[in-house]
Amino acid sequence: MTSLTLKNVRPMAGALTDLYIRDGRFADSAPEGAEVIDGGGRIVIPGLVEAHTHLDKSLLGLPWYRNEVGPRLIDKITNEREVKVALGLDPQVQSERQAILSMSHGTTQIRSHVDVDTHHGLAGIEGVMATREKLAGLVEIEIVVFPQSSMMPRLGTLELMDEALALGAEVVGGIDPCGIDRDPKGHLDAVFALAEKHGKPVDIHLHERDALGGFSMEEIIARTKALGMQGKVTISHAFCLGALDRGYVAGLQDQLAEQRIHIVTTAPASAPVPLVKELRAAGILTGAGSDGIRDTWGPYGNADMLERAMFIGLRNNLRRDDEVELALDICTFGGAAIMETEGYGLGPGDRADCVLVEGETLAEAVALRAPRPLVLKGGRVIARNGTCVIEAP
Amino acid sequence: MTSLTLKNVRPMAGALTDLYIRDGRFADSAPEGAEVIDGGGRIVIPGLVEAHTHLDKSLLGLPWYRNEVGPRLIDKITNEREVKVALGLDPQVQSERQAILSMSHGTTQIRSHVDVDTHHGLAGIEGVMATREKLAGLVEIEIVVFPQSSMMPRLGTLELMDEALALGAEVVGGIDPCGIDRDPKGHLDAVFALAEKHGKPVDIHLHERDALGGFSMEEIIARTKALGMQGKVTISHAFCLGALDRGYVAGLQDQLAEQRIHIVTTAPASAPVPLVKELRAAGILTGAGSDGIRDTWGPYGNADMLERAMFIGLRNNLRRDDEVELALDICTFGGAAIMETEGYGLGPGDRADCVLVEGETLAEAVALRAPRPLVLKGGRVIARNGTCVIEAP
Repeated sequence: MTSLTLKNVRPMAGALTDLYIRDGRFADSAPEGAEVIDGGGRIVIPGLVEAHTHLDKSLLGLPWYRNEVGPRLIDKITNEREVKVALGLDPQVQSERQAILSMSHGTTQIRSHVDVDTHHGLAGIEGVMATREKLAGLVEIEIVVFPQSSMMPRLGTLELMDEALALGAEVVGGIDPCGIDRDPKGHLDAVFALAEKHGKPVDIHLHERDALGGFSMEEIIARTKALGMQGKVTISHAFCLGALDRGYVAGLQDQLAEQRIHIVTTAPASAPVPLVKELRAAGILTGAGSDGIRDTWGPYGNADMLERAMFIGLRNNLRRDDEVELALDICTFGGAAIMETEGYGLGPGDRADCVLVEGETLAEAVALRAPRPLVLKGGRVIARNGTCVIEAP
Repeated sequence: MTSLTLKNVRPMAGALTDLYIRDGRFADSAPEGAEVIDGGGRIVIPGLVEAHTHLDKSLLGLPWYRNEVGPRLIDKITNEREVKVALGLDPQVQSERQAILSMSHGTTQIRSHVDVDTHHGLAGIEGVMATREKLAGLVEIEIVVFPQSSMMPRLGTLELMDEALALGAEVVGGIDPCGIDRDPKGHLDAVFALAEKHGKPVDIHLHERDALGGFSMEEIIARTKALGMQGKVTISHAFCLGALDRGYVAGLQDQLAEQRIHIVTTAPASAPVPLVKELRAAGILTGAGSDGIRDTWGPYGNADMLERAMFIGLRNNLRRDDEVELALDICTFGGAAIMETEGYGLGPGDRADCVLVEGETLAEAVALRAPRPLVLKGGRVIARNGTCVIEAP
């Protein structure tokens, strides 16, 4: 394990100090004879947390994919299943490419939803697992078993999910119990049964809007309560919390807080979104993610969680410094807490996962999004000046 | 004037070719003995157009401004007037800094709204005019006389605006005739009277939402029609066109199209916005801008119009390549047409204002937003590899 002294840095934009790292963790005294890196007075923050992405399906590194997909959700899902075959997409290679891009921007841990369907079986899961092993010690990858193409209507999907969890995937996924699966009771009963069987947490994609999303959310809340899964359930996207009827939303948020259900947002500009200041006020743990990066769904995305903090700021109209700091908190401490990361932070005993960022203040770091001068994972240098130490395949 | 051959480029992502520049304009044959620059097979597009910003009030280059401003619009306007004094903000220096940042990203022309008020008089106008002169031949700057602090309620503002137009400002500005000026008839009569007197076009900030914005918009439409100012009037922001009642909005859009009134959007993620595909379908000319960049209103912004195209794409849910190309068109040809730019384009006879961009396709260029390898203004190199040839003060 790595030991070093990180001189001349400002933790969370505070006073100038030196940080000591012994055997991969922050320590309160200097490790003897270890390397010294000068941070040049820069801000240091804990490693950025990518709490929602799809490592298996990025098209990074491939020739440009011309998107001519139809407007409906089903068009995108069907197209993707077919394009994966047509392009011969290798989930191991693609996930490694995206993980390395993440690392270059200062991300030290990733929660990735990974497709499981009867067309591609466990190819995605196996590919991302191979990448996880290959990059062990450099970035952490948590896998959510994700029934992108639906679960109940496609017989055999549930069994594949069960198999993936037995193989070592960490989280049970789910998707729009009404909008996609068309069987909310069946879908959610199956998801929570898998969670109980494997003793694993849940993270469900919920794009359903307004009252439909609220209905599905209430069903998730009811099962969380019944199974005593407080603190173990995450709802990703949660567009229904962006509904116009704020009184109704406040009621949902109270129930989420009571059951300690977490929210992960990607802060999309074109969809209703949970309001992060309201979530904070309600005491709901919130994380953030990039969602898909340059895939068959859309051309955007660069895996930069500092840029995602800016997107959260722009979407939520966060302008004051304290507000922009909330956006950054979501992309660091929020995501880490949702992933139940042991020893996340910059204090003695915490894991030495951290990033130097440019800027005089945390808000400036978010607004600038300049290349990260240095990224450490367990005290080991994984990126310098915006470039990962590992070359992408 | 500059002559050169730009070898090995792909105009608008089309076939590989050479572009010839003679005396600052594209030509159909090679200029003898002129310099040759190899474009390395990259895409070339016409210069990016910043059609809505505020050059006079950016805080670029200053120590970080900690934003603790209140939530109301009036808090932001009042705070800004005071902070300008407290910081001793020099509109010449600040506008030069921002213009140089714009140039580094490939912008070759800028429409800037510039504050005129009874507190600061014409200091902003004079500062931006000085920058315009200093950067003549390197970037074009068009000045909109902008009554940020209101016009009718602050006696003396109208006279200052009149004076600024006589000094050489090109466009008559205006702001929320109801929401800020509280006197829509008085405000719009005065704005259009100035336009008539000076024979200049109009560009009005309209943040008012829903029916209130629709009312002000109808009043703008009525005056445009009455004065025969078709093609000479722009409405910036136009949040009321993002209203939920799409039938009502369609009616407004029909009237805008009839009077050839243009829309400029900044595609904010947290406000209702005009839908660019609908504007295109209605035949309404659309441009885009960065709005304020790192000012007392908010910390964001980098003056990159390729990034702005991405914001338009994200806000309007543009995913297909042809849709992303529309976003880029708005940030190039759309803005140029609104500014009535003579000779804008890549054809023989057009002004040699152009940018090399990274990426295999136009959509990839927008998604990547990589530093621009080369920017030409009238055939003259104004930026290379993301850095302007002029150093900021």
